[in-house]
Amino acid sequence: MLIALGGNAIKRANEAGTTEEQLRNVSITCEQIVGLIKRQGEDDRIAITHGNGPQVGNLLVQQEAGAYLVPPQAFDVVGSMSQGQIGYMFQQTLQNYLRAAGGRLASIPVVSVVNQVLVSPDDPEFLDPTKPIGNFFSREEAEGLMNTKGYVIDPPAGREYLDKKRTGFVIKQVVPAESSPKPYRRVVPSPDPIENVEGGAIKRLVDMGVVVIASGGGGIPVIRNEEGSLEGVFAVIDKDKAGERMAEAIEATHFLILTDVENAMLDYGKPTQRPINDMSLEEAEMYLTEGHFLRGSMGPKVEACIRFIKWGGERAIISSLERVVDAMDGRAGTHIHP
Amino acid sequence: MLIALGGNAIKRANEAGTTEEQLRNVSITCEQIVGLIKRQGEDDRIAITHGNGPQVGNLLVQQEAGAYLVPPQAFDVVGSMSQGQIGYMFQQTLQNYLRAAGGRLASIPVVSVVNQVLVSPDDPEFLDPTKPIGNFFSREEAEGLMNTKGYVIDPPAGREYLDKKRTGFVIKQVVPAESSPKPYRRVVPSPDPIENVEGGAIKRLVDMGVVVIASGGGGIPVIRNEEGSLEGVFAVIDKDKAGERMAEAIEATHFLILTDVENAMLDYGKPTQRPINDMSLEEAEMYLTEGHFLRGSMGPKVEACIRFIKWGGERAIISSLERVVDAMDGRAGTHIHP
Repeated sequence: MLIALGGNAIKRANEAGTTEEQLRNVSITCEQIVGLIKRQGEDDRIAITHGNGPQVGNLLVQQEAGAYLVPPQAFDVVGSMSQGQIGYMFQQTLQNYLRAAGGRLASIPVVSVVNQVLVSPDDPEFLDPTKPIGNFFSREEAEGLMNTKGYVIDPPAGREYLDKKRTGFVIKQVVPAESSPKPYRRVVPSPDPIENVEGGAIKRLVDMGVVVIASGGGGIPVIRNEEGSLEGVFAVIDKDKAGERMAEAIEATHFLILTDVENAMLDYGKPTQRPINDMSLEEAEMYLTEGHFLRGSMGPKVEACIRFIKWGGERAIISSLERVVDAMDGRAGTHIHP
Repeated sequence: MLIALGGNAIKRANEAGTTEEQLRNVSITCEQIVGLIKRQGEDDRIAITHGNGPQVGNLLVQQEAGAYLVPPQAFDVVGSMSQGQIGYMFQQTLQNYLRAAGGRLASIPVVSVVNQVLVSPDDPEFLDPTKPIGNFFSREEAEGLMNTKGYVIDPPAGREYLDKKRTGFVIKQVVPAESSPKPYRRVVPSPDPIENVEGGAIKRLVDMGVVVIASGGGGIPVIRNEEGSLEGVFAVIDKDKAGERMAEAIEATHFLILTDVENAMLDYGKPTQRPINDMSLEEAEMYLTEGHFLRGSMGPKVEACIRFIKWGGERAIISSLERVVDAMDGRAGTHIHP
């Protein structure tokens, strides 16, 4: 089973993100996960992936704030830092809960693996990045960032707008100017994940009964350059889609996406909105096409589930962290199956 | 075989530490390591550990510079970030060199593991920290840090001077005031490593032929608290001593410490200074007691080698990165054996 954890499993929106706060949230999450492991059979396997948005956001702020003293690292390297950070917090906390649970659980090892995910250098996202990150800006603030940091505002799509290794951002107007005084945000390419680079080693660990934490933050995005070498790129991979590639790599039967809502919804945001308990692959594809799911939010989660079932997975579930045990028992969440 | 890499394998003293500079140095290092793997038999195993001083130093500067915007993370968490960062750079670069080498080497997997190392909460270093880190300060600068950041100057040894989770530092006068206008430095506890926490999973990976990078920066230092749970502490473990614990965990026969000099020296710094090519365990212990090796520099390296041979290792070697192949052939370095 692969569990994909959302950002709320680590940092809540109303928190600054101190180590204490994050460890407290991670602790709540790990308690739920250990509850799940308790109910598993001895031969069932579990692996975990997680988001890193707030952590990378804070690291970027710190890197920029310290830039007059020490060089900020490239975006892919900052992603790798967040894998170390979050991996450590989950690894230690899970080890503690497993040990406290005693018996068979006390001897289950947990490790986090630094993990790259392959994307294509020809992914259209590199020509027209769509993933917004961080704060909203006014036009004036956006121009200020353009002048002081070399950010690019609203470049025309269709040309390769940036060096794939660049450290500066593109800023785009993401909402109409009438609807907000701050309609601009930084955007980064969010290319489609092709393959989990360390998937082979991760599978071997999982097969041995190790709880593996990997593909953090969607993995460190890398391309194969002309010489065939891996090279980090300036991008953020959707963590659920990358998690799905990890689920393939470890040959998981179940793929659980835990988020802050209990279900995917039909007619999301409309008065007719209603939760989906169960959908076949065909229904899921139909609903996705019909636009029931929010782009950049529930949309990619459903897409990742569809991909998992198409690949050969038995069941994909979207649920909330609090109801993970119920979801596995079929009493909660949105279930997608062949 | 376990290889312990020094800081110069990642960032040179005259560099600011950009991603490009670090990747260039890592590349030079990985070329040497792949040269070594080429000469190994198919059943020989290799694992790597590394320092993290400059990277943690830069991360601390950035965390402090951004503290007015986002909360700095605890010291152990910053260490975990550096494991992600350095692990990623080595992992990707080694993968690229192995692939380019072709044949058997092209299929050798490489992974970095987030890795904790257990220390004792009763280690005397927590009462009297000795490891200096970062810049030198004048008395006035030290007092400024005391007033603005709550650092403690020259606390009397013998009392538990700080909460093991604290984020503030102790400052100590490390050289006589007559010999430098800036005789103060921050110091952190450097407790003795007891055990590599993830050693079991790391050994299984190594046994399967995976090149594992772990115990980075001496590992993330953790204690077992009263409930038996792991808990990060404010400390830095010597990376060679922690590397030795990792060598034990993977049951290595050889332990290579690669540094910026070719040999350990007798009468270091004196006119009679001369390199040691070979020493027995007894000779190594005698030379160490006689004070031939610099404390905080060659001293802990020789101590780590002594510990490795006593544990049952066949051979420990201290050498330079450039001469690693010669060192393995017995034509370079300082060899310690039973």
